[in-house]
Amino acid sequence: MNIKITGSGSYIPTRIIANADFASHKFLDEAGTLLSHSNEVIAEKFRQITGIDERRYGEDDLVTSDIAFFAAERAIEDAGIDPETLDYIIFAHNFGNVKAGTIQTDLLPSLAARVKHSLRIKNPKCVAYDILFGCPGWVEGVIQAQAYIKSGMAKRCLVIGAEMLSRVADPHDRDSMIYSDGAGASIIEGTPDGDRGVLAHVTASYTYDEAYFMFFGGSYNQEHDQDVRYIKMYGRKIYEFALSRVPQAMKECLENSGVAIGDLKKILIHQANEKMDEAIVQRFYKLYDLPMPERVMPMSIHKLGNSSVATVPTLYDMMLKGQLKDQELNKGDVVLFASVGAGMNINAIVYKI
Amino acid sequence: MNIKITGSGSYIPTRIIANADFASHKFLDEAGTLLSHSNEVIAEKFRQITGIDERRYGEDDLVTSDIAFFAAERAIEDAGIDPETLDYIIFAHNFGNVKAGTIQTDLLPSLAARVKHSLRIKNPKCVAYDILFGCPGWVEGVIQAQAYIKSGMAKRCLVIGAEMLSRVADPHDRDSMIYSDGAGASIIEGTPDGDRGVLAHVTASYTYDEAYFMFFGGSYNQEHDQDVRYIKMYGRKIYEFALSRVPQAMKECLENSGVAIGDLKKILIHQANEKMDEAIVQRFYKLYDLPMPERVMPMSIHKLGNSSVATVPTLYDMMLKGQLKDQELNKGDVVLFASVGAGMNINAIVYKI
Repeated sequence: MNIKITGSGSYIPTRIIANADFASHKFLDEAGTLLSHSNEVIAEKFRQITGIDERRYGEDDLVTSDIAFFAAERAIEDAGIDPETLDYIIFAHNFGNVKAGTIQTDLLPSLAARVKHSLRIKNPKCVAYDILFGCPGWVEGVIQAQAYIKSGMAKRCLVIGAEMLSRVADPHDRDSMIYSDGAGASIIEGTPDGDRGVLAHVTASYTYDEAYFMFFGGSYNQEHDQDVRYIKMYGRKIYEFALSRVPQAMKECLENSGVAIGDLKKILIHQANEKMDEAIVQRFYKLYDLPMPERVMPMSIHKLGNSSVATVPTLYDMMLKGQLKDQELNKGDVVLFASVGAGMNINAIVYKI
Repeated sequence: MNIKITGSGSYIPTRIIANADFASHKFLDEAGTLLSHSNEVIAEKFRQITGIDERRYGEDDLVTSDIAFFAAERAIEDAGIDPETLDYIIFAHNFGNVKAGTIQTDLLPSLAARVKHSLRIKNPKCVAYDILFGCPGWVEGVIQAQAYIKSGMAKRCLVIGAEMLSRVADPHDRDSMIYSDGAGASIIEGTPDGDRGVLAHVTASYTYDEAYFMFFGGSYNQEHDQDVRYIKMYGRKIYEFALSRVPQAMKECLENSGVAIGDLKKILIHQANEKMDEAIVQRFYKLYDLPMPERVMPMSIHKLGNSSVATVPTLYDMMLKGQLKDQELNKGDVVLFASVGAGMNINAIVYKI
């Protein structure tokens, strides 16, 4: 038995933040020195590398579990299921609920418990828990759902990826322009059709040298309280790591699936950074001595930025619903989901629609 | 195939905090009013209800992932395995790393990634992630390990429960005397012996009315910044909830296992509060029209307090290693693990040693 996605939903926050909205930011380097270029030059260089024109921030009265609930409602509606029949709610995030204007992470109760509460599900046998697995959290949640379904412990799972990175971004760090808020959700069920759904998966955690490539650190403005911490990353190291490890993981996953490279229709990769994503996919095809096919890599990053765990399920949802220009998904298409992020974790799924 | 625990370890922090150490605390009620009794009277009443004489706090230079690492090292040594052969590291906690003297939760990278880094494991196929499931997190991690092992996705898992509740306790809340720090870890593997190991499990998430019985809230001292939040609970509601739901879940689990009530040797229940735990176990036996057998419920709470996810694996480890007075475990004994906590989540495992 395979598992498949039987319903999908996403929530895209309404506040649009353009690159120009960072014009008044005082961007510093790690040592606290003012960057030598104007913010206009910084923003343009940023756009060229990341592909990001705009990103979305959630309204101040919302927290991560709220936007997750919105996406979950839509996935349930899309699947046409009774939410009381869910066996699991698996919620991937990395920073919990952080109220606007505060610095504390609220994890009590788990965000999955809050979503289940908001969905008004009564069935106590619907087990609600959170996972923390960096940006690959939603993909990993799908793999966990597969374990429950294959081992007979579940029939139907809701897997959510939601994050509000705007709440943990250092305003003095240029990298903060990458981060965005969003939520995606999917209903996962078993299918007797062994030719469809998840055909293969791989997961890897590189922690020996890489564990702290992404970390929680003080503001680049050293006059700020260094005990107040933000999402931080060693961009160069992550870029090199991703290029050396992700294409190989994608290839391993495709080989495990038995699907020929020529039959792969789309690669839905975590929307981390457009240049990095392109370099990963190019190198993946290079492993087969092939050029990267045109339009194989749909991108939502230009308008939505990097919303961590939310990018892959949101991208999938937008494509399914015809909301991404010149990109669509059709029954029978084979797609590769791939993600990389804090941990450093990598995972991939080969999926036949 | 069943799963079994093939190695066990725990770390008990070295700082002993006696009830008398709270003598200078200014205890307030929810409305901010000073409690009418002296701290001596409060402490004595507290001791009579909870059974807690002392609790342990981690040293200021340690965070939750550090004490988890200590417990994990011991579990690996106890199992006599090469850590490179681990397929999963599943780390249950609820508050992440909170450095002494600060209020922020650090979840980046995940605590499981940090433990894997500290264990110096190179194997990228060892997948490291965190789960948030309230106090029942360690038991749930064992159930997740079972899903991976039964579905063929893993052979050997490390499941950790570690918490430092001292870092999120409101000094003006009497309930803060309950909370403690600790870490327990176990190696989980498959066994071809269908008569041993985990014979049955149940899990339930009650969120409809109960999701916010435990929550993150402002200090009872209303002069304090109410944006700085602490672990809070509606003790009375939790007590009533636990008594009405946990005995039934334990009975369901025992029935699923096929073990007769008379063959149950010990109940290793989450060390929440002695009077509550006793009432749960008494009511469980009452469902069989039996009195609660003497010494069926080993307790570590008197000296160790309530360290959330850490209590069950620590209690198991202490008993295995003969560190609990008049309590031991022997090969062939059937024990029931049971837990209840934030979510509100409940779970239980029937386990034959």
